[in-house]
Amino acid sequence: MCQLLGMNCNVPTDICFSFEGFSRRGGETDEHKDGWGISFFEGKGCRTFMDVEPSASSVVAELVKNYSIKSLNVIAHIRKASVGSVCLENTHPFTRELWGENWVFAHNGDLFGYDPVLSGRFKPVGTTDSERAFCVLLEALERSFAEKPSPQAMYPVVCETAHQVAEGGTFNFLLTNGDLMFARCATDLHYIVREHPFSVAQLKDLDMTIDFQEYTTPDDRVAVIATQPLTINESWTRIDKGCCLLFQGGEVISDGFCSLPDS
Amino acid sequence: MCQLLGMNCNVPTDICFSFEGFSRRGGETDEHKDGWGISFFEGKGCRTFMDVEPSASSVVAELVKNYSIKSLNVIAHIRKASVGSVCLENTHPFTRELWGENWVFAHNGDLFGYDPVLSGRFKPVGTTDSERAFCVLLEALERSFAEKPSPQAMYPVVCETAHQVAEGGTFNFLLTNGDLMFARCATDLHYIVREHPFSVAQLKDLDMTIDFQEYTTPDDRVAVIATQPLTINESWTRIDKGCCLLFQGGEVISDGFCSLPDS
Repeated sequence: MCQLLGMNCNVPTDICFSFEGFSRRGGETDEHKDGWGISFFEGKGCRTFMDVEPSASSVVAELVKNYSIKSLNVIAHIRKASVGSVCLENTHPFTRELWGENWVFAHNGDLFGYDPVLSGRFKPVGTTDSERAFCVLLEALERSFAEKPSPQAMYPVVCETAHQVAEGGTFNFLLTNGDLMFARCATDLHYIVREHPFSVAQLKDLDMTIDFQEYTTPDDRVAVIATQPLTINESWTRIDKGCCLLFQGGEVISDGFCSLPDS
Repeated sequence: MCQLLGMNCNVPTDICFSFEGFSRRGGETDEHKDGWGISFFEGKGCRTFMDVEPSASSVVAELVKNYSIKSLNVIAHIRKASVGSVCLENTHPFTRELWGENWVFAHNGDLFGYDPVLSGRFKPVGTTDSERAFCVLLEALERSFAEKPSPQAMYPVVCETAHQVAEGGTFNFLLTNGDLMFARCATDLHYIVREHPFSVAQLKDLDMTIDFQEYTTPDDRVAVIATQPLTINESWTRIDKGCCLLFQGGEVISDGFCSLPDS
């Protein structure tokens, strides 16, 4: 299994604090040491830092922790390999272009033996179940909509396709196009929306606090989504199993779709 | 105009020495300060470091210069913006998946007013002429071959498509799938093949030398391709205008296609 971290905001925000704690779980406070990756949207552009080294000791992770990239949407992933060897092409997040936008995806869980029939429009480069599932999600979106539709139109297509994929195993994931963030929970996924009045947060994985009041304005709103809560003094919401939330501008805009628990 | 740097090898090689010199041209020894990017293939996987800051002073470039990533194929680009503003989605190299492989592309030159009709299979995310031309090249490949063909079959399709694109302006480019490297010259593109017996090279852009004998075995072969030669004591070959070379394993495997000079 792996761990996921996502951020969706209404104003470009850096994720240094959350990533500082999260990255410790890659070989230090937890066992997810088979590579890691993080994708930042800056406008329509997207850059991904990744490494097959554990995030707790990777020099690239060190750069990311100290380099304030302000982004509306971020997905990070630390990997404990199950399906697919430890190599760069099997490292999350994965990226593809659809409708002239970058789409970024990371998965936590196992879809053992998952071998969907793909049209070829999106083909996996690596050998993970995760990248195959990502291709299936994008195929479903493209087949349903020749042009980019509204978030409300996309939501059921993503949810229903995810529900089908989840029949084959455990399918927690984060999916973003730089504006929307889909967060589906199969077993473990939590989120918090930070907004005015901001307070002090204390990381769980190391002795570090931040007073968000110093870095925010009253209009800022930031949703952070993680497999397990990253802080110990805030109230995180557990996403119900089988449910898929859609975030935009730092808040949940769609949450109606919940299938039965898939594990 | 921009500058290009490519490497194609028969054994994974780091590009630190060449990139050290090349990156100085991004705001220090030359004027290409509107962002930069570098893509490394590691197996089938590919990671791109990029920044809108000048490469001569970017903290991400500093990491790349000091971090020995061993790769068979690398493309780097430093930008002097002409078509398209300075932002991440307009930063080269560009990446797309075709036939389950990552394809990476960077362009030097201007294709003013270039507005090709695209099928939609590959759509530009940013607003550069370069990304549009990349989409055209990939569309031509996909239209010609449902599955990945031999290098010899691909070569004329890339060359002829490039020749058509070049009717609209200046089209120097590098294109790789992690195995093959296409290098097309419109105005300026040079290359060198380093092989046994290796010798000492002296960078042009700063006072730095390397003795390749210390880092190589007699079987190694490394082709380096750059807009302008990077070293002052080696003999670089200028690619003829209008010509497209195909490299594999550190050597030229196809060079028959030369159109008339397009500028």
